[in-house]
Amino acid sequence: MRLSRFFLPILKENPKEAEIVSHRLMLRAGMIRQEAAGIYAWLPLGFRVLKKIERIVREEQDRAGALELLMPTLQLADLWRESGRYDAYGPEMLRILDRHKRELLYGPTNEEMITEIFRSYVKSYKNLPLNLYHIQWKFRDEQRPRFGVMRGREFLMKDAYSFDLDEAGARRSYNKMFVAYLRTFARMGLKAIPMRAETGPIGGDLSHEFIVLAETGESGVFCDKDVLDLPIPPDDVDYDGDLTSIIKQWTSVYAATEDVHDAARFESEVPVDKRVNTRGIEVGQIFYFGTKYSETMKALVAGPDGVDVPIHGGSYGVGVSRLVGAIIEACHDDAGIKWPEAVAPFRAAILNLKQGDAAVDGACELLYRDLMAKGVDVLYDDTDQRAGAKFAAADLIGIPWQILVGPKGLADGKVEVKRRSDGSRENTSPADVVAKLAG
Amino acid sequence: MRLSRFFLPILKENPKEAEIVSHRLMLRAGMIRQEAAGIYAWLPLGFRVLKKIERIVREEQDRAGALELLMPTLQLADLWRESGRYDAYGPEMLRILDRHKRELLYGPTNEEMITEIFRSYVKSYKNLPLNLYHIQWKFRDEQRPRFGVMRGREFLMKDAYSFDLDEAGARRSYNKMFVAYLRTFARMGLKAIPMRAETGPIGGDLSHEFIVLAETGESGVFCDKDVLDLPIPPDDVDYDGDLTSIIKQWTSVYAATEDVHDAARFESEVPVDKRVNTRGIEVGQIFYFGTKYSETMKALVAGPDGVDVPIHGGSYGVGVSRLVGAIIEACHDDAGIKWPEAVAPFRAAILNLKQGDAAVDGACELLYRDLMAKGVDVLYDDTDQRAGAKFAAADLIGIPWQILVGPKGLADGKVEVKRRSDGSRENTSPADVVAKLAG
Repeated sequence: MRLSRFFLPILKENPKEAEIVSHRLMLRAGMIRQEAAGIYAWLPLGFRVLKKIERIVREEQDRAGALELLMPTLQLADLWRESGRYDAYGPEMLRILDRHKRELLYGPTNEEMITEIFRSYVKSYKNLPLNLYHIQWKFRDEQRPRFGVMRGREFLMKDAYSFDLDEAGARRSYNKMFVAYLRTFARMGLKAIPMRAETGPIGGDLSHEFIVLAETGESGVFCDKDVLDLPIPPDDVDYDGDLTSIIKQWTSVYAATEDVHDAARFESEVPVDKRVNTRGIEVGQIFYFGTKYSETMKALVAGPDGVDVPIHGGSYGVGVSRLVGAIIEACHDDAGIKWPEAVAPFRAAILNLKQGDAAVDGACELLYRDLMAKGVDVLYDDTDQRAGAKFAAADLIGIPWQILVGPKGLADGKVEVKRRSDGSRENTSPADVVAKLAG
Repeated sequence: MRLSRFFLPILKENPKEAEIVSHRLMLRAGMIRQEAAGIYAWLPLGFRVLKKIERIVREEQDRAGALELLMPTLQLADLWRESGRYDAYGPEMLRILDRHKRELLYGPTNEEMITEIFRSYVKSYKNLPLNLYHIQWKFRDEQRPRFGVMRGREFLMKDAYSFDLDEAGARRSYNKMFVAYLRTFARMGLKAIPMRAETGPIGGDLSHEFIVLAETGESGVFCDKDVLDLPIPPDDVDYDGDLTSIIKQWTSVYAATEDVHDAARFESEVPVDKRVNTRGIEVGQIFYFGTKYSETMKALVAGPDGVDVPIHGGSYGVGVSRLVGAIIEACHDDAGIKWPEAVAPFRAAILNLKQGDAAVDGACELLYRDLMAKGVDVLYDDTDQRAGAKFAAADLIGIPWQILVGPKGLADGKVEVKRRSDGSRENTSPADVVAKLAG
């Protein structure tokens, strides 16, 4: 992408309304624009990050055997009356009347709708297990939306729902999502630690929150240092196999948010030199809720003995739009964002340090063409801004690899490659940059 | 994908509520489920088609230089008061009050919001031309939603918005979208003919509808047979070059919907043997509306002389979810859907005609693995249904290539390949099928 043709409205001033660093940086980097309280438009740069996160979430859900569908944003109020949550949900639910005075709502989650879909079609245990997910916009009418996309009202969530004949099956489904989440967040360059959690309004008796460690996080976190270095399950993890050893490994080491922190246990279990007390951001939560919805909503299947039983369910959420903010909270410095490569809006940038100089322009064009040909996602800053402004912009928007092309280096056949994550720099030939980034 | 692990709730009965063939086939094939009047959940099979259509739309918008962003579904009423359309829009607009009694609406289109975004950041002609698009769910509260996804209330639309300094620039932007639309629909296997159209509530003085010819279409269409064979602009069409010759070629041949049909002109311009009178479905519409929104909403840029002028705008819509229905209307027979390959939910299906037979199972597994390894999108019917039921399902859901694997053929080292589009069949070795589909 040529920057001269891109839409990247970088703000020079720090926006006053932004209380936290991710909100500030997303506004400054031209990633989002607020359209109403807690409702954002995703400008092209922000949209690219959102899509990359969504793709990783999707790939790992698919790998774990979940099937993607797409439920609508609006739902019938009657569906929520069946589960009893219509009245219970309170003012966070956005309630709507259509032209025929029919009661609708903007879905804050989809347990009811997916249960309705399931019960309409699935009648036998032979069609289980089943895990259906979608990635769709949700709405929660927060009393006081703030922190940008971290606590928005309209937000993008991945929510999966599992259906099993019995508790043992449901726990296998739960474990698959547990492992998928470990992989999902690790692929985004995050340390996300599963922590036992309260189940809240979803209900049920087993739940884990996945917490990204970030000093600017919303809640305090206590853990054993060892949990930070546990191995992430590999690409070829066998989801049909027994995952309990992975789950045991991750759940036997102390890790808790301040809400459920047990100081006595922490002190007895964790040696002093391994006690970590930092802050964290919730980016995902998984629940096993048994027959909570299947009993009230009559989602029954015939078991092997022909008798109808309510299915055992779980639900599994990832805050896709929230993750954009969470990653920035975990990955930034004073100059701006430091995107992990897997979610960067562009993996590399070419900075033309002397626009209009025939040799520099020529070298940049060639590099741009070669990188594009190799499938590298590259932004070419071909604007007539000064070099200093180009450096600042590339750092602000957090491009992992920045290729500085100027007349002096070119005279020696070199360009300078700067790595955003650690600021390291290297002089190298254009051909070597292409080889390195294409590899 | 193994069918035994997929969620494909095929209906045996013809659903009574469905009045048109696409609606009937989408319900029967387990593609969608109605959740409220005009509001559908996309089940996994339907979702796959929706995503393939979305991807083609996106690729062709990107190719034409449009930039993707994503605006929220909900908008502030005040924004629409600025343009004067809040009151004008009538009961089709879904109006919403949030918990603080703030007036919101579910966006039926985005001219106002994109104009607000544009004017907030772009101040100079130097940043033009600009074309911003998104693919987002919209809502129109139709009095009487019907025909499934063809006239739903919650629907997925691609809408692009162009910004230019003057009319000449805006016409160049219009022409780019005209060409992009020709390519978009052709890639989906459709004959979509651009026809001069009324501008309606969007306003402006130039508009074309893109109409898919289908005998079951919603409106009558008159055209010169020659328009059906005009060449589609190639992959490498130069969007920065002069596109007027392509536009002239397509607009100089008679083509009109019955709303704007001019019988006298039709008869004088089109020889009797070339007169086509059939039916069609609108799948896209493009508008040039000049300064309609920029004047009322003050979207001004400084021109080369430093004087602020309102930009010239256009908007360009594709009915992404509607296209799923439109393609079925154009591509089906009595047995079911006949997907064009580019949008098929799976490109090929393997039908195991004797599940449990070691030789047949083994051959199917090998074929499945080999096709997957080559990146072919394949559905393997490994269920214990009878062969007849498998044939019927594969035809109903419209898989373009069906590979029939049975003990008799295998004894000769052969499988049978059936092509859904014309019903032709061929006996061939498994290796040749893989080579053919991978090519």
